Amino acid sequence: MQQAKTGALGFDIGGTKISAAMFDGNAVISDVQKVPTPSGSQAIIEAFLKLIAHFQADYTVSGIGIATAGIVDTVEGYPVTGTNNIPGWAGTQVKRIIEAKTNIPVYVENDANAAAYGEAKSQSLATSPCTIVITLGTGIGGGILLNGNVYHGYEYGAGSVGHFRICSENRRQCTCGMFDCWEAYGSGIGLMATAREVLAASKPQETRLFENEKDLNAQVLVAAARSGDPVAKIITDKWHGHVCAGLAVLLHIFDPEAYILTGGLSEFVDLPFLAALLKEQTYPGMAQKLRIYKSTLGPNAGLIGAAHLILDALASEKVKQ
Amino acid sequence: MQQAKTGALGFDIGGTKISAAMFDGNAVISDVQKVPTPSGSQAIIEAFLKLIAHFQADYTVSGIGIATAGIVDTVEGYPVTGTNNIPGWAGTQVKRIIEAKTNIPVYVENDANAAAYGEAKSQSLATSPCTIVITLGTGIGGGILLNGNVYHGYEYGAGSVGHFRICSENRRQCTCGMFDCWEAYGSGIGLMATAREVLAASKPQETRLFENEKDLNAQVLVAAARSGDPVAKIITDKWHGHVCAGLAVLLHIFDPEAYILTGGLSEFVDLPFLAALLKEQTYPGMAQKLRIYKSTLGPNAGLIGAAHLILDALASEKVKQ
Repeated sequence: MQQAKTGALGFDIGGTKISAAMFDGNAVISDVQKVPTPSGSQAIIEAFLKLIAHFQADYTVSGIGIATAGIVDTVEGYPVTGTNNIPGWAGTQVKRIIEAKTNIPVYVENDANAAAYGEAKSQSLATSPCTIVITLGTGIGGGILLNGNVYHGYEYGAGSVGHFRICSENRRQCTCGMFDCWEAYGSGIGLMATAREVLAASKPQETRLFENEKDLNAQVLVAAARSGDPVAKIITDKWHGHVCAGLAVLLHIFDPEAYILTGGLSEFVDLPFLAALLKEQTYPGMAQKLRIYKSTLGPNAGLIGAAHLILDALASEKVKQ
Repeated sequence: MQQAKTGALGFDIGGTKISAAMFDGNAVISDVQKVPTPSGSQAIIEAFLKLIAHFQADYTVSGIGIATAGIVDTVEGYPVTGTNNIPGWAGTQVKRIIEAKTNIPVYVENDANAAAYGEAKSQSLATSPCTIVITLGTGIGGGILLNGNVYHGYEYGAGSVGHFRICSENRRQCTCGMFDCWEAYGSGIGLMATAREVLAASKPQETRLFENEKDLNAQVLVAAARSGDPVAKIITDKWHGHVCAGLAVLLHIFDPEAYILTGGLSEFVDLPFLAALLKEQTYPGMAQKLRIYKSTLGPNAGLIGAAHLILDALASEKVKQ
């Protein structure tokens, strides 16, 4: 019988699904399993245990890394709060329960932080003094890596970068209830709000965007802008300005080595244009050596990052022994 | 003959003066010497050497800490740039030159960072996961302390917190040339600009501030607001809102344990009012456990912090031996 391959099992749990795959420190070495997120703490734990048993049939699981939505206590290993889209999940002692059931070490981290860790590792920024990973999706999330470690803040609330304000006029309400958060402009929701504002001030003869207005999305906007539609260009230029506004704030505060952009919207970012905007809008010289990358891991960043985290935790404990 | 007291000699060099005093790790143990900042690198070094000799007459100087304006390379120990108000100073190899001349170990740090280090040490926040010290003076400066260490960023540019934008309308130009920097609103210059805007929209019968309009300053404004002048109250309330705007940005990013406010304007801050504004303007729950303090070291924070830094560097090297 062939010996089972060894690796860490990475999970990523969100409001709609749980993804899981085996990772050996360099690459995903299994298929990626996806199951719908069940309702309630007990059902979720059972789903995890079932997936663990599935992978144990073919692999030796040396550690389990779990990326989850919400604010996570990484010492105790559980989601504390901010998991409204996963009913019953907040407060579940994930690490304690799964370690007791499986006898395998578990590491739990916020999904944006785990993805950031995975991305930085994959782009040779694992020991960077400061690398910031920004997720441009429906909302905006962020993971801040300092000297290779996820920065958590005093109470694991650091990196709520989607919710600092980039203007002060109470012009746009964010999904969080506050006004003028970065997320209300730079996210997918923000981009579509900008599109509606610009279209409301445009005439039908100026743009073809009115033709399928109800099906308008980021992909259509970017394609139209690239094909020369002037109104689409105004919208996507404004969106780049909004993305830049938040990156400029973070640049003045952190002087990072690199930004990594991830999430569904990151593919629509024009990196040279964004870099030029950043140089214009920051303190002279600050953006000179900054590098901006796009994600290389795509949608598996969270589970890969979580797997990296448990592997690195196991390795550092080995060093201690 | 009595044995000479031992301690670190702390310096603080700015555009107008050099301050220096002996510090034993707990308190300043000498008088504070102040000399005008001379012009040119060589003259400044000579001024330092003269002050060192002055203190060596009465004290054993075990280390020298230097707080300076500008962006500082703390490894090589010299101001790299950003010292326009100290002609000839940028690029001077302070650490190398003074160590060669005196045979005493030297540590050089940016003045805001040194002050931050001193303040955190004096308020039992020396090992805090995150404490941010904000200097509210003519401008706005900041020092970010993570796990007791000054955070420098990739190229020592971190903490340029005065120059992230708090709004986006290009309404006020900052002294740096950009628009709408936090400093353009929350600093002394910002407060006076707000005063001028509010007064331009006010009538003489509404306020007594017009009586000495040309002598208007922060102290007069705050005194008038406290004595019930409604226009002065509008101005100082707006200023608190502007100070809050920057603190709210930093709160979402860092989830800090504490803010320490220092600089000439910090004495005019109404802490309970500021804390209430911050709770209103941040993600629910984030500001709940935050503590906000005012400086306890006053104008000597920079030289005390620099002295702390060299003493701690010497102590950690002892541990290594």
